Amino acid sequence: MSVQGLSINLATVRPQFGFAAAVDACLTQGITAIAPWRDQVAAIGLDEAARIIKANAVQVTGYCRGGMFPASDKIGLAAAIDDNKRAIDESAALGADCLVMVVGGLPGTSKDIEAARAMVADGLAAILPYARACKVPLAIEPLHPMYAGDRACVNTLEQALDLCDALGVGIGVAIDVYHTWWDPKIRAQIARAGRNGQILAHHISDWLIPTRDLLLDRGMMGDGVIDLKQIRADIEQAGFHGAQEVEIFSSENWWKRPGEEVIATCIERYRTVC
Amino acid sequence: MSVQGLSINLATVRPQFGFAAAVDACLTQGITAIAPWRDQVAAIGLDEAARIIKANAVQVTGYCRGGMFPASDKIGLAAAIDDNKRAIDESAALGADCLVMVVGGLPGTSKDIEAARAMVADGLAAILPYARACKVPLAIEPLHPMYAGDRACVNTLEQALDLCDALGVGIGVAIDVYHTWWDPKIRAQIARAGRNGQILAHHISDWLIPTRDLLLDRGMMGDGVIDLKQIRADIEQAGFHGAQEVEIFSSENWWKRPGEEVIATCIERYRTVC
Repeated sequence: MSVQGLSINLATVRPQFGFAAAVDACLTQGITAIAPWRDQVAAIGLDEAARIIKANAVQVTGYCRGGMFPASDKIGLAAAIDDNKRAIDESAALGADCLVMVVGGLPGTSKDIEAARAMVADGLAAILPYARACKVPLAIEPLHPMYAGDRACVNTLEQALDLCDALGVGIGVAIDVYHTWWDPKIRAQIARAGRNGQILAHHISDWLIPTRDLLLDRGMMGDGVIDLKQIRADIEQAGFHGAQEVEIFSSENWWKRPGEEVIATCIERYRTVC
Repeated sequence: MSVQGLSINLATVRPQFGFAAAVDACLTQGITAIAPWRDQVAAIGLDEAARIIKANAVQVTGYCRGGMFPASDKIGLAAAIDDNKRAIDESAALGADCLVMVVGGLPGTSKDIEAARAMVADGLAAILPYARACKVPLAIEPLHPMYAGDRACVNTLEQALDLCDALGVGIGVAIDVYHTWWDPKIRAQIARAGRNGQILAHHISDWLIPTRDLLLDRGMMGDGVIDLKQIRADIEQAGFHGAQEVEIFSSENWWKRPGEEVIATCIERYRTVC
């Protein structure tokens, strides 16, 4: 039986499966949409990954990930631009719906977050024409503020959309509930994004209380405090009806279980709490 | 030698010192401003704490804490109001510059953060007349979004100031750099708060990379990535020239060192990086 509207970000089963095994495990349970990471694709080879996707008519709801623009010097900034262009090429080869942008944090020993944010804006502007030419939409993913220093200095949907508005066509947002659920402006900003056709992806998981690790303790949908149905309703109201993509980093729980069980649980929770 | 402009929140030396010993340790090193917690005051008794403060001409830059309004039923909501009125009484007895409000998160098993936020607004409105009568300013402390579920559903300075504007005189904000440094709107919101005379306190510490615990791994000023001088400049530009209050929860580092060393380090860092 096909599971419509559900995508598995392959980080969710990273320790259990390589790319090919992950796709197989998804297809076996009726899931026909995935979101792979660059290292997972590199491990099997871009051509083989693209072949598997095409042969099985798999939808790629996003490719993870571009971004990481801030750097301490011009060589680092230029290297990030080049690497992002390669990620755009790979996204095109895989037929991904978008390239997810985790924009990067403070470079080196810098404490100047405004400067880092300016580097992000400049980096996005530098690659956007190439992304447009390759027909690869860029999806800025605002990350939770607890990652502002080391992973992404774009931390609210409003900030991401301000960037998108300044940059023009070809760029939008990936709305991950884990990063955005707390935001008092989330509903208004989802509506704003919808008005401008800027919602490119919707990622789901849950916020656990307590959260034992800043990076690797995301919860399965339903095990935490996020009102997933409300956020989904807002996103659909805003005009986005694409897949909900499960992205769970969970070193002490889900990454230790059999991959088939994880995927089955995603399906069950998707049907009951999302 | 007196250390002007520096206050020690007594949570910073919680395991090392009770109230009286903490005040002694601060005075010995020239610090004449503190911010105690309710349990620390209760342990020695309110009258004795007030006597020590008065006898030593100690400034109380804030009293921690009121808030925690959301509850699952009317009994819980009413109990929170009563408890906050007691905290206001204690603040008045201690001559505190403000009562710090950590507003509370989701009650019980609720996932409805909008409802929790409404309970907070209602709770603040319920106690504000009493606070005004007692001449105790209330200082809403927006907490980092990683605490939205379990500690405080007011998570940005903008959100806190919107609340203050709606509530009127007698209420402002405590700006803690740990909770707010990441915010792309922080500079504009500090300026806004200053225009309306709403800055009541300025808390300092640092954001460590990596951060190993969501609650108890705050850094000493200078050990993390926060641009403390810039934020202080913005706060002074906005018209607030009160003390910088050190508030560090650090179960694996500073809480394990001698309290005298912690206070000496606060002074040294205050003079060099704040």
